[in-house]
Amino acid sequence: MSQIDYIVPGFEVAGIAAGIKKKAGALDFTLIASRTPCRAAATFTKNLYAAAPVVYDRQVLAANAAGIHGVIINSGCANACTGTPGDANTRATAEAVEQALGAGDHSIFVMSTGVIGVQLPMEKVLAGVPNVVNALRPDGWTDAAQGIMTTDTRPKLFTRTLKLGQHTIRFTGISKGAGMIHPNMATMLSTIATNAHISQPLLQQALSAAVNASYNRISIDGDTSTNDTVLLLANGVAGNPEITDANSAAFAAFLETLTLIAKDLAQAIVRDGEGATRFVTIAVNGARSNDEAHAIANTIATSPLVKTAFFGGDANWGRFVAAAGRSGAHIEPEKSSIFINGGPDASERMGELQLVAGGTPLNYSEETATRIFKSPEIDVRMELGLGQGSATVWTCDFSYDYVKINGDYRT
Amino acid sequence: MSQIDYIVPGFEVAGIAAGIKKKAGALDFTLIASRTPCRAAATFTKNLYAAAPVVYDRQVLAANAAGIHGVIINSGCANACTGTPGDANTRATAEAVEQALGAGDHSIFVMSTGVIGVQLPMEKVLAGVPNVVNALRPDGWTDAAQGIMTTDTRPKLFTRTLKLGQHTIRFTGISKGAGMIHPNMATMLSTIATNAHISQPLLQQALSAAVNASYNRISIDGDTSTNDTVLLLANGVAGNPEITDANSAAFAAFLETLTLIAKDLAQAIVRDGEGATRFVTIAVNGARSNDEAHAIANTIATSPLVKTAFFGGDANWGRFVAAAGRSGAHIEPEKSSIFINGGPDASERMGELQLVAGGTPLNYSEETATRIFKSPEIDVRMELGLGQGSATVWTCDFSYDYVKINGDYRT
Repeated sequence: MSQIDYIVPGFEVAGIAAGIKKKAGALDFTLIASRTPCRAAATFTKNLYAAAPVVYDRQVLAANAAGIHGVIINSGCANACTGTPGDANTRATAEAVEQALGAGDHSIFVMSTGVIGVQLPMEKVLAGVPNVVNALRPDGWTDAAQGIMTTDTRPKLFTRTLKLGQHTIRFTGISKGAGMIHPNMATMLSTIATNAHISQPLLQQALSAAVNASYNRISIDGDTSTNDTVLLLANGVAGNPEITDANSAAFAAFLETLTLIAKDLAQAIVRDGEGATRFVTIAVNGARSNDEAHAIANTIATSPLVKTAFFGGDANWGRFVAAAGRSGAHIEPEKSSIFINGGPDASERMGELQLVAGGTPLNYSEETATRIFKSPEIDVRMELGLGQGSATVWTCDFSYDYVKINGDYRT
Repeated sequence: MSQIDYIVPGFEVAGIAAGIKKKAGALDFTLIASRTPCRAAATFTKNLYAAAPVVYDRQVLAANAAGIHGVIINSGCANACTGTPGDANTRATAEAVEQALGAGDHSIFVMSTGVIGVQLPMEKVLAGVPNVVNALRPDGWTDAAQGIMTTDTRPKLFTRTLKLGQHTIRFTGISKGAGMIHPNMATMLSTIATNAHISQPLLQQALSAAVNASYNRISIDGDTSTNDTVLLLANGVAGNPEITDANSAAFAAFLETLTLIAKDLAQAIVRDGEGATRFVTIAVNGARSNDEAHAIANTIATSPLVKTAFFGGDANWGRFVAAAGRSGAHIEPEKSSIFINGGPDASERMGELQLVAGGTPLNYSEETATRIFKSPEIDVRMELGLGQGSATVWTCDFSYDYVKINGDYRT
């Protein structure tokens, strides 16, 4: 795709090297801006050690959700667990950007990702502000996506288009995944820009639903970051009749497309997980409720024993049931069945193989099971036979490289 | 210590090679027996996919807790998720041992550890029963400890002595740790034998308290086995006045010694954790309650990011606060402090270093922090400043070898 395909009318973006990362010339300072004020929606980490930018952004959202002009994002320092100085640094960053853009108070969000417990290098940050503002352009999305990377091996940038009558609604989003150049927390940051005209309450409703079906269904290592933030900015430049009815066809279409790009962005994080060699989809059906299905899928997806078995290409399904059995959800072992499938990529599957029926192992072909588990993409389906609850979670394997990336010393 | 030091009067033990493990001659069948009937107490896995022997042992304990003659333990096959045939195989194993010992119904417990989803090789098991009975002797504890090993690199065998008046109470226990020869679940099995005379309800009360302060405070990889069992057998041969009062000095002394050996056995499992290179003690104080302190310590101890940092010898304390912040327990970041210490073994420490005060990083020596984190033993102390709740958890690091051991194919 060419740069031009990512343009969202009314948005200008840039990513520059501000010297925050140790590696000279590495992009580390991203600005996404709209001259037209945006309505904003956001979801934030539930970690009680929320980073300074998360604390600040919650205030901005509460104060000015319909008058937002953008978000400034630095990589190389998480500004988390930094006390009162950390709070002041976030505020000073936002104010410098607001001044440079001629935008009002509380109109710029801030995100940070990097080492925890280290203060932002404010001299470099403030020197970077005029530079990143000068670099703004409609087709700067690739630089913007690169500017938020840490141990990511590739930028995560997606775009989707929705036709609402004669109006073209664009969604372009960036996200970053697991780890850092100096390995640390797996901070997940994502921003999606759209030109849709939609009321702020519906914007938040759509974002919460989309996040719940995408970002909240991925796991790389089970650790919730202090900085996780998903931000959705809508500047209304498309000129479509304002979406104000949660039961309208327009809202349903908006939510559907938003969920698709959120899944694109979230799955891209897993595919680029630290040290990941396989992409795994875990579906749990027949639970008593969706929440219980989610608890089971999540426990399987975060089990180190399950994840090392995926790495080894070992169809060791005993680890699935052991993880499911400690999830806290109700299970009746004699009703549970397990199916697996695999393929080289998202578009191809070799055929499903059943391993367990009624809680008892079947006499399946170990060779076929191994071929499936040695695939780049693996699907696991667990049927509990208890009710209508279901959930799908995406995860990756746990490799030597995960240990290497996260065991290496920070300097 | 010589073999003779482990003897518990009235108990005879053995470990033999019954051919259940693939490796020829490997000890895999252990019997701990007492001609004098024992009172028994036990704690079992909370995993809903409890293995056949766990389901069976719960019945035995309910039916005959004061008439127990021993426990038969096989390694090499967990007999978990094996349906109705698995239940029948456990019962047949117990009955064969009861018959060979001339003991009554429901007088023998069964434990199994190994691959999940594979049936016991009953021909070998039943052929092994007369052999293991013939091998019984008072000083057979080392063989017994070896017979329950899987990927353990060394047997775990401890003994403690308590003087109650002129009566000598002995406790000897064995445990096994994480993994298998064909890596699978981290099954934790432990049996402690004592010659104390104590009522069955107090025996269970003592065991539950001791387990809560020992086995329930260790984590290697966060995965709860389908087979976890701790068994305490008391044959009364010491002849001490029966302990029947929970408020007596004798019960307090019994509980204290039992807790000490339970900690010996539990900590030995962590020190021999799969791929472990460091032994880590995580203490959380000042929480609102002991339960919340335990939740925080446990979340830190099971975080892959924390455990890989321990492996790397990286004093990356940001990962401690991030894990604590997602534990579900109440935290006020600005009140929390972190201290670390380390040494070459349990008996020596280089001195405590404070990293964080009031939620803000101190200007500590990174060199000292690194020296501590590169020690074989590391202590982490987190002070929350909220109340009187405290808990200590023991864990190990997460190394390349953990991934190797658990990623390798089962055959």
